[in-house]
Amino acid sequence: MEARLDAPTVDLLGVLAYGELTAFERLASDARLAPSVADKVALATMAAAEFEHFRCLRDHLAASGVDPEAAMEPFMRPLDTFHDSTEPNDWLEGLIKAYVGDGLATDFYREVAGSLRDEQTRSLVLEVLADSGQASFVVATVTEAIRVQPAVAGRLALWGRRLVGEALIQAQQVAVDRDALTELLVGRGGLAGITGLLNSLTDNHSARMAAMGLQA
Amino acid sequence: MEARLDAPTVDLLGVLAYGELTAFERLASDARLAPSVADKVALATMAAAEFEHFRCLRDHLAASGVDPEAAMEPFMRPLDTFHDSTEPNDWLEGLIKAYVGDGLATDFYREVAGSLRDEQTRSLVLEVLADSGQASFVVATVTEAIRVQPAVAGRLALWGRRLVGEALIQAQQVAVDRDALTELLVGRGGLAGITGLLNSLTDNHSARMAAMGLQA
Repeated sequence: MEARLDAPTVDLLGVLAYGELTAFERLASDARLAPSVADKVALATMAAAEFEHFRCLRDHLAASGVDPEAAMEPFMRPLDTFHDSTEPNDWLEGLIKAYVGDGLATDFYREVAGSLRDEQTRSLVLEVLADSGQASFVVATVTEAIRVQPAVAGRLALWGRRLVGEALIQAQQVAVDRDALTELLVGRGGLAGITGLLNSLTDNHSARMAAMGLQA
Repeated sequence: MEARLDAPTVDLLGVLAYGELTAFERLASDARLAPSVADKVALATMAAAEFEHFRCLRDHLAASGVDPEAAMEPFMRPLDTFHDSTEPNDWLEGLIKAYVGDGLATDFYREVAGSLRDEQTRSLVLEVLADSGQASFVVATVTEAIRVQPAVAGRLALWGRRLVGEALIQAQQVAVDRDALTELLVGRGGLAGITGLLNSLTDNHSARMAAMGLQA
């Protein structure tokens, strides 16, 4: 058994693992809204990839002598609340949530991963984040839907804004509750670093919305 | 590319593949009802295994020159209807559905697989069916829940009966619509064979209910 991980690292792995587990659960469940088998398979494939990530993170925690359930527990409530408050009403909303949610999470974790002291954990986190893939499917589908029915763009743009809003509310809650995780973030450059992070998250989010033909 | 599969084989692979895909989707979605992370992980792991099965079946269809989506299409409606009419109301109902549904499906497909002419398909189907595994988790959890609160047993026994009833209604619909599949079944020994199959499905179902401490 290798040396125990420090508290911020355990927190980061815990929130990431539970995030992948709930992403799996929600994407698989949103696959129900798919208009065709091909679409269903595409979303189910994204969901299955999230479960693989979850498995890697859980196994890494366990191999490091940390109880994975205890590590995830503090993050269940904010992540469940995020998902409960952003239940997609139709297939397009589900796709946008998959793309925007995954994008925000990936940007955030990639920034934070830079501060991780444990090299093995850092490589694992970056590896898990690198493998998201299916974005082009979402972009193509949403773009085509807007081309066919331009009127949906307004509603979907609002939906994108709501996703970011709810994510920020929950992230803030986590920051208040979890000092270790916040320190990892603040340690990167104090409040200026956090402002920089928020700016870069927002820029990337706008770029993703624009790629789908939506205003951020 | 190997020789094309005959119509009953394509039908069997199609219904099995779509069955695995919807099982994945519904199990993953029912994981939401889990009372703890450990329970959630257990159901999510079952769901991920169903997706692996789906992937094998789909790849086998494609490698045999059959369009997987066309093969699945005729079975979407009956399987979706089954799931829509048996949406679990709580965690225990979800577990029982996973166990009873998987058990019924496995018994049925294993019987039918014996009639498949294509050896490679027969091995694949039997391999996919062999790997269900997690039954002991369901049995242990349901048994314990009934021990703690014996009053739930009546409701859960009714739920088990409803699951079988809805499954039979949809199976009958498929039998009426899909001559090829029905011939595969009838070919095994005519109506007497079907009666035998129904008896053995019922016996195995009763044994599974009894294992959970429930009356069939």
